[in-house]
Amino acid sequence: MLDRIDINCDMGESFGAYKLGRDQEVMNYISSANIACGWHAGDPMVMEQTVRLAKEKGVAVGAHPGYPDLMGFGRRRMDLTLNEIENYILYQIGALYAFANAHGLPLQHIKAHGALGNLAFVEPEVSKAIARAALRFSKDIILVVYSGTIMVQAAKEVGIRFVEEVYADRVYNPDGTLQSRKIAGSVIHDPEKAARQALNMVQEGYVVAHDGTKVKVKPETLCVHGDTSSAAAILQKIRDELKKASILIKPMGQ
Amino acid sequence: MLDRIDINCDMGESFGAYKLGRDQEVMNYISSANIACGWHAGDPMVMEQTVRLAKEKGVAVGAHPGYPDLMGFGRRRMDLTLNEIENYILYQIGALYAFANAHGLPLQHIKAHGALGNLAFVEPEVSKAIARAALRFSKDIILVVYSGTIMVQAAKEVGIRFVEEVYADRVYNPDGTLQSRKIAGSVIHDPEKAARQALNMVQEGYVVAHDGTKVKVKPETLCVHGDTSSAAAILQKIRDELKKASILIKPMGQ
Amino acid sequence: MLDRIDINCDMGESFGAYKLGRDQEVMNYISSANIACGWHAGDPMVMEQTVRLAKEKGVAVGAHPGYPDLMGFGRRRMDLTLNEIENYILYQIGALYAFANAHGLPLQHIKAHGALGNLAFVEPEVSKAIARAALRFSKDIILVVYSGTIMVQAAKEVGIRFVEEVYADRVYNPDGTLQSRKIAGSVIHDPEKAARQALNMVQEGYVVAHDGTKVKVKPETLCVHGDTSSAAAILQKIRDELKKASILIKPMGQ
Amino acid sequence: MLDRIDINCDMGESFGAYKLGRDQEVMNYISSANIACGWHAGDPMVMEQTVRLAKEKGVAVGAHPGYPDLMGFGRRRMDLTLNEIENYILYQIGALYAFANAHGLPLQHIKAHGALGNLAFVEPEVSKAIARAALRFSKDIILVVYSGTIMVQAAKEVGIRFVEEVYADRVYNPDGTLQSRKIAGSVIHDPEKAARQALNMVQEGYVVAHDGTKVKVKPETLCVHGDTSSAAAILQKIRDELKKASILIKPMGQ
Repeated sequence: MLDRIDINCDMGESFGAYKLGRDQEVMNYISSANIACGWHAGDPMVMEQTVRLAKEKGVAVGAHPGYPDLMGFGRRRMDLTLNEIENYILYQIGALYAFANAHGLPLQHIKAHGALGNLAFVEPEVSKAIARAALRFSKDIILVVYSGTIMVQAAKEVGIRFVEEVYADRVYNPDGTLQSRKIAGSVIHDPEKAARQALNMVQEGYVVAHDGTKVKVKPETLCVHGDTSSAAAILQKIRDELKKASILIKPMGQ
Repeated sequence: MLDRIDINCDMGESFGAYKLGRDQEVMNYISSANIACGWHAGDPMVMEQTVRLAKEKGVAVGAHPGYPDLMGFGRRRMDLTLNEIENYILYQIGALYAFANAHGLPLQHIKAHGALGNLAFVEPEVSKAIARAALRFSKDIILVVYSGTIMVQAAKEVGIRFVEEVYADRVYNPDGTLQSRKIAGSVIHDPEKAARQALNMVQEGYVVAHDGTKVKVKPETLCVHGDTSSAAAILQKIRDELKKASILIKPMGQ
Repeated sequence: MLDRIDINCDMGESFGAYKLGRDQEVMNYISSANIACGWHAGDPMVMEQTVRLAKEKGVAVGAHPGYPDLMGFGRRRMDLTLNEIENYILYQIGALYAFANAHGLPLQHIKAHGALGNLAFVEPEVSKAIARAALRFSKDIILVVYSGTIMVQAAKEVGIRFVEEVYADRVYNPDGTLQSRKIAGSVIHDPEKAARQALNMVQEGYVVAHDGTKVKVKPETLCVHGDTSSAAAILQKIRDELKKASILIKPMGQ
Repeated sequence: MLDRIDINCDMGESFGAYKLGRDQEVMNYISSANIACGWHAGDPMVMEQTVRLAKEKGVAVGAHPGYPDLMGFGRRRMDLTLNEIENYILYQIGALYAFANAHGLPLQHIKAHGALGNLAFVEPEVSKAIARAALRFSKDIILVVYSGTIMVQAAKEVGIRFVEEVYADRVYNPDGTLQSRKIAGSVIHDPEKAARQALNMVQEGYVVAHDGTKVKVKPETLCVHGDTSSAAAILQKIRDELKKASILIKPMGQ
């Protein structure tokens, strides 16, 4: 049983005149912010404001790089070479680092976004390209990997620091993957249920899949989606339950 | 009289399938490379290759940020707020830093590109916004300012390290500004003439304007344009003449 | 006194995952939609949906082209040549035409967006470049010009069909220009007040400026901004008042 | 045996300051130009100049739409929905139509570019989405389909006019597909050889695959790549041979 956990959430996904997400509110509940880097979402003004907000709230910052596809919000797979993936990630890490550094914050972590992140779950070479980009940037940066997937092995092979991630608000398959969003009910909107799943993972080290199977997980950081209407309620409930259980919420890098 | 000078040139301006410039050749002659950061030109693959090439040739690297206007190559003024300029520059510095850092090179300097650079000559607040962005990123980064302009004063006010830049291949006005490219003959293509102007500035501290006036300059870095057909010949001639005069060519940061 | 008027509103300003405006609601109240063309806002999916919605509601469609500056929502002036303006507009008109044509609708009109539209108020050559682009596309397309400005003369010189536009929800200066948004109270949020101004312009042919001056206007189309929270209320009130006064609301092209 | 053939080539692939291809030269030899529409290549200035040049040379113009991926030149597959493909194509057709129309030229044809075009060879639903976009735009537009592939059937099902395309400068597989560019020798650079292959297809209705198999083709338009150094020589030789054989070169739409 763990006595501490990190809570991470995607932040800074607005762009120009377009507002997305509830960063002001959600930033109160999390310990690590995955900040978009201007390719699939975000722009330098948004990055500046998001890093500033994170600093005010004591939240650690990380890069959330994605495909060069603003029109598709990084959710459409693109057939990039591994070399392209590595350099595209490196570019975006550097861009976010500039804002973190300007505010005196370290760049704590990196977590790939959307279709690129999903590809990393199934393609070990993609996982490694992402890990290499992060490691080339700094040996101190932490790679967020999806608990129990090939990403863990890829991170080990590349030799990068990593933490394993679990989901509070998603239904699991018996094999440890997430049930597709296309299946109704795959996203958990009920704060009670999400908090119970979170607590269970942290305290017991397993999650109950949709068929009742207990799937072993290693929760080092807990992901909650910030763009749902119930996000704040879910986050509030999770925090309450973790507090009752005397589990501290701390950035993964501390 | 100086015993050393830096030679800088814009590099890494290709984009995707589009090739621009003669980086492979020009990189042999210069000591500092101003590398495009993916906004007005350049992309992560080009940045990676350009930084790698600079390292191989012993050339120091700097960021060459510009407007978010690839279609206009950063040559069209955009009415940005000072805040936007500062954050756009900061973003691009970080992006290039990532590649420098990945190759174990420091990010030596920053020089604004095109219409943004030109605006900095005439708008002190723009100069200061650029300087602030660089200083926020690092107190070690050097700002390249156009010798004898308001940029010098702006750099001093912001408190950033800076070096003054002169042009080997451009005709000067009596007031120390460059004669507009729109006037025929404003760009010097004759290697002899460019080398003579360069040597004169370095050895005597002045340049002869188009009307014969001697204009005082403080040459710390010498800019040569790499995209002309005569660039290599000009650079070769300048190097020869500097060598004869026992003037060393060294990156501005050394 | 007029017995008919057009009401136009900017529509289709969403982009990818980013939603902007209340098109579904506002489209019920207007007779002409100015649809973004994918440069400052909008994308092909949004354009398709917006044209489809307009058709369902019996609203005529026009192109609303802007600067190639999604990050700035087309609100930042760019120093383009007249030739660039003409061709950029032509491109965007064609793009929107494709969707109109696919739905069996004519492309009724064109109205320049944001900083480009504002520049057209003060630069006759810009006005003419926009008019030329529209006329090159089709002699049937109507150019929306701001009533009483140099745009009227520019449209006449180029020989394009045009209609004069007035604003229901903006405060006027005594010289017929709009009071800057930077001055508090320049945007009218009170439906009563906006409807009164609209009716006055249509029935009496003048608008009362902020100092009480009666400014002559020629209202052929009435612009209401769709992105304010009070837009629907304002539009509803204007429609009610126009109806009471037996003034028909019809697309400018009919 | 045919007494006429069309020769098509990709044109207008420059972008802003970036020049690509030899349009001025190649336009002398072809009868149909596939013009990039600003997404994977091209911009409104380039489109204007390319359509103008085509008109001067008596060359018919068509749209050459691609993925929204300038950085990848449209050569990287993106996982778009069929709806997205259809609307993205429709947008680009309209954009090019604007320039054709402004110059008094009909938009003769459409041919998908790069990875999107390649996907259409293997995915019937993608072929149909492209065909639907073109047909929604106009019943007069001709779809260029790769001879003997599923694109032919898709075009028939959608009910669009189409012409079958063959390649003069590519080596064929026995099944009628093109040998991958990754295999050395797959692109024919020898003008004699390319001209012989072209003539054979036009006169005899078959092409000799790399293993000697005679593959039946229906050549209605002949594609030659304009970006190779030997393009002009190949085109000159093909024209000479066609002339000797009394085969006319005419745009597909005539």
